[in-house]
Amino acid sequence: MNLTESNLYEELRTFLQEHQVSKNETQIEQHSHDESYHKASPPDLVVFPESTDEVSAIVKVANAYQTPITPYGLGTSLEGHVIPYDHGITIDFSQMNKVIEVREKDFLVKVQPGVTRSQLNKELKKYGLFFTVDPGADATLGGMAATNASGTTSVKYGVMRDQVRDLEVVLADGEIIHTGSLAQKSSSGYNLNSLFVGSEGTLGCITELTFKVYGIPEHIVAARASFPSVNNAVEAVVSILQAGVPIARVELVDEPSMKQVNMFSETRYQEQPTLFLEFHGNEAGLNYDVEFTKEIVADHQCEEILFEKDNAARNRLWEARHNLAYAYVHGNPGKKLMVTDVCVPISELAGAIEHAREKVNELELNGGITGHVGDGNYHILLMMDMDDPDEVNKAEQLNEQIVDYALQRGGTCTGEHGVGLGKMKYQQREHGEALRVMEKIKLALDEKEILNPYKLVHQKKTRL
Amino acid sequence: MNLTESNLYEELRTFLQEHQVSKNETQIEQHSHDESYHKASPPDLVVFPESTDEVSAIVKVANAYQTPITPYGLGTSLEGHVIPYDHGITIDFSQMNKVIEVREKDFLVKVQPGVTRSQLNKELKKYGLFFTVDPGADATLGGMAATNASGTTSVKYGVMRDQVRDLEVVLADGEIIHTGSLAQKSSSGYNLNSLFVGSEGTLGCITELTFKVYGIPEHIVAARASFPSVNNAVEAVVSILQAGVPIARVELVDEPSMKQVNMFSETRYQEQPTLFLEFHGNEAGLNYDVEFTKEIVADHQCEEILFEKDNAARNRLWEARHNLAYAYVHGNPGKKLMVTDVCVPISELAGAIEHAREKVNELELNGGITGHVGDGNYHILLMMDMDDPDEVNKAEQLNEQIVDYALQRGGTCTGEHGVGLGKMKYQQREHGEALRVMEKIKLALDEKEILNPYKLVHQKKTRL
Repeated sequence: MNLTESNLYEELRTFLQEHQVSKNETQIEQHSHDESYHKASPPDLVVFPESTDEVSAIVKVANAYQTPITPYGLGTSLEGHVIPYDHGITIDFSQMNKVIEVREKDFLVKVQPGVTRSQLNKELKKYGLFFTVDPGADATLGGMAATNASGTTSVKYGVMRDQVRDLEVVLADGEIIHTGSLAQKSSSGYNLNSLFVGSEGTLGCITELTFKVYGIPEHIVAARASFPSVNNAVEAVVSILQAGVPIARVELVDEPSMKQVNMFSETRYQEQPTLFLEFHGNEAGLNYDVEFTKEIVADHQCEEILFEKDNAARNRLWEARHNLAYAYVHGNPGKKLMVTDVCVPISELAGAIEHAREKVNELELNGGITGHVGDGNYHILLMMDMDDPDEVNKAEQLNEQIVDYALQRGGTCTGEHGVGLGKMKYQQREHGEALRVMEKIKLALDEKEILNPYKLVHQKKTRL
Repeated sequence: MNLTESNLYEELRTFLQEHQVSKNETQIEQHSHDESYHKASPPDLVVFPESTDEVSAIVKVANAYQTPITPYGLGTSLEGHVIPYDHGITIDFSQMNKVIEVREKDFLVKVQPGVTRSQLNKELKKYGLFFTVDPGADATLGGMAATNASGTTSVKYGVMRDQVRDLEVVLADGEIIHTGSLAQKSSSGYNLNSLFVGSEGTLGCITELTFKVYGIPEHIVAARASFPSVNNAVEAVVSILQAGVPIARVELVDEPSMKQVNMFSETRYQEQPTLFLEFHGNEAGLNYDVEFTKEIVADHQCEEILFEKDNAARNRLWEARHNLAYAYVHGNPGKKLMVTDVCVPISELAGAIEHAREKVNELELNGGITGHVGDGNYHILLMMDMDDPDEVNKAEQLNEQIVDYALQRGGTCTGEHGVGLGKMKYQQREHGEALRVMEKIKLALDEKEILNPYKLVHQKKTRL
């Protein structure tokens, strides 16, 4: 076929309305980057489907034209997932933003992919329910499934993959499938839910999601605990987990990051390595957990532990924690954010964070360490001047060293941000021969390689 | 290639010792069936590898000869998974039965596939740890991963798939891969862990497993609650879940099954629809949960609730529950066991069980209903006279009706037993177009279709 770009536009316009297909400069620019340091690259067209059938029709056209497809939620990704390096069509899911069904009795909700986390929680509150996965950014549910997002509450409730019961997916040929069912568990067929969660738009476009939600806990207590060193804080977390305390959140924020928090959020928290903690449960069990935790942190030289029992103070605490990345961006105008994202077995966490701090200091970089330490997942937040090749080079060296350290100890190069473009170079090192299995699956499901090219797995064609 | 069976034997003997390759009649017979009603079929050879390298070499030979491979744990499967309908080589993993490593601090354990559940728990007890997945049978860990086993504790701790962090797998060409890492969570690459868990030996042979274990709970309380009807019992379960009680086990055993339990286990439990319950936690929280549960079951006409706080009585209770299938087999000499295994959303459970009882009565079958009702998973246990075509036909009709009911309500045809041969006929109905995706994955990873033929997915070749 020898079809031009304008033919493509005309073809899409046969079933999409004018406002649904955009070549508008602002739209093109907005869909050419994410929230990270990764280089921008524009799509040729942005489309705004309003139904699964429209997505299917768009993908069929793209397939016929061999045009790349990049699914787009809100662009909050940190590894370039939504940047269309091979141009083509970006599918923006913002118009597919309905909460379709809340099945209270089953603790299930069905949504379109463009629904955001905060929109969903607002709706769920009416039913006394909440959605647990909390990556900080107010991402779309489609995007969160595509990257297997997680965050502060995963230590208790699990990651995105643990919540998903069923996805509706449009495949590379436009066929529509369902990857699961509404049953709590199943041993029927290969588990496609978990394959498509985290596949970053490289195997299909998610057009509907059904997943687990939870009853709002009877009691919630949050706390801030400060320690003389990061090491003390991390050792305290390991002891809390060892003791079997069913902690709901346990976040580390180091000293430089506490300074950023206070500056941005206008809080006056102590500028010491700090754990932000949260407990969920019935009152009796929770009081027991809280007392036990107090003893444990005291054993690890905790200097102060402050509890926030009322809603407002608790929300302020978590908002401050969530705004940390924005605090760095805000505090460093003109610079771009790079965040490392390794996850290590908990027994290796203290060593890993110590190593990370050493490397940051050695390279004379300005970086804060924070993390979902109950999962062994931590981040170094770096603000880079992209025009300073020396600084960029150092940041890349750091990332490399952090990843190597983690992989040598049974860890992973990305705990929650995903591979996108940024972590592709580590896939062979992490997965070895298993990467061949991933490539085979990719080619079996997307033989023309039109789905989010240059992301997650290496591909045979080299169009870049 | 035109290679005979005796060439195959000689080829295997170049790297396996005499006792590792068997044509012995007893061995062949033992590996020709599982614990269910499915028709027996013998392998040509049974091999007993002692290392991953030996498994790899065996699969390479099988690949060269295009000989089918069937992995075998202990043969406790219920859908014919281990029956070699296309003959060839059965790989018996009983000699790969070592607990390789217990990583206490990480709550992880690494084992060979032939380790059994009870063997593992005996070892873990030394560390104050336990393995949660509890399908009743003392299956091997390799088999449990292959079928995504679950059981009584899944309502709290999840199924086999939720525990697995990494598998070592020998692929169809003999290559050895690792499907995951030791990290608690990862967004790196496609999730191969969940793809291989539940793949029933059709994508590769599991040669090593690393998975999650838990600290033995501080306090455990078990209980038996009797109800006037199954419906009351099921509604009580739904209310317990709705109330957010973090119940660790909640099993339904109906009246006919309680009679079988008492006969086989020499217990004197009340012969009424009964819930077997268990609570895990700290003392304070657990007392609260227990009191709350008492109120809830009372609201659902519970006639008697008895608590077992000491270890011995608790173990007796669960042993009686676990021996239920054996109780049926024992009480019906000469007959074969068929067990339905659907799982439905919890909101549909009461209706599903009522429908099941009606159908059993309509067909004048003799069947007990039991199940992991907290997950929406229930079983009808039927003892069939395989020489009575009318009885077999009725049992098949029943299975069909039960599956249809479940699928129409968002359920699955198998909650935990797997597809094997028995549930293949429902795969198209359950998965629709998604079955094409499964077939593509199967062919991409096993193009010669030597891995456990005639199981789980339809295959292109029809050799049967």
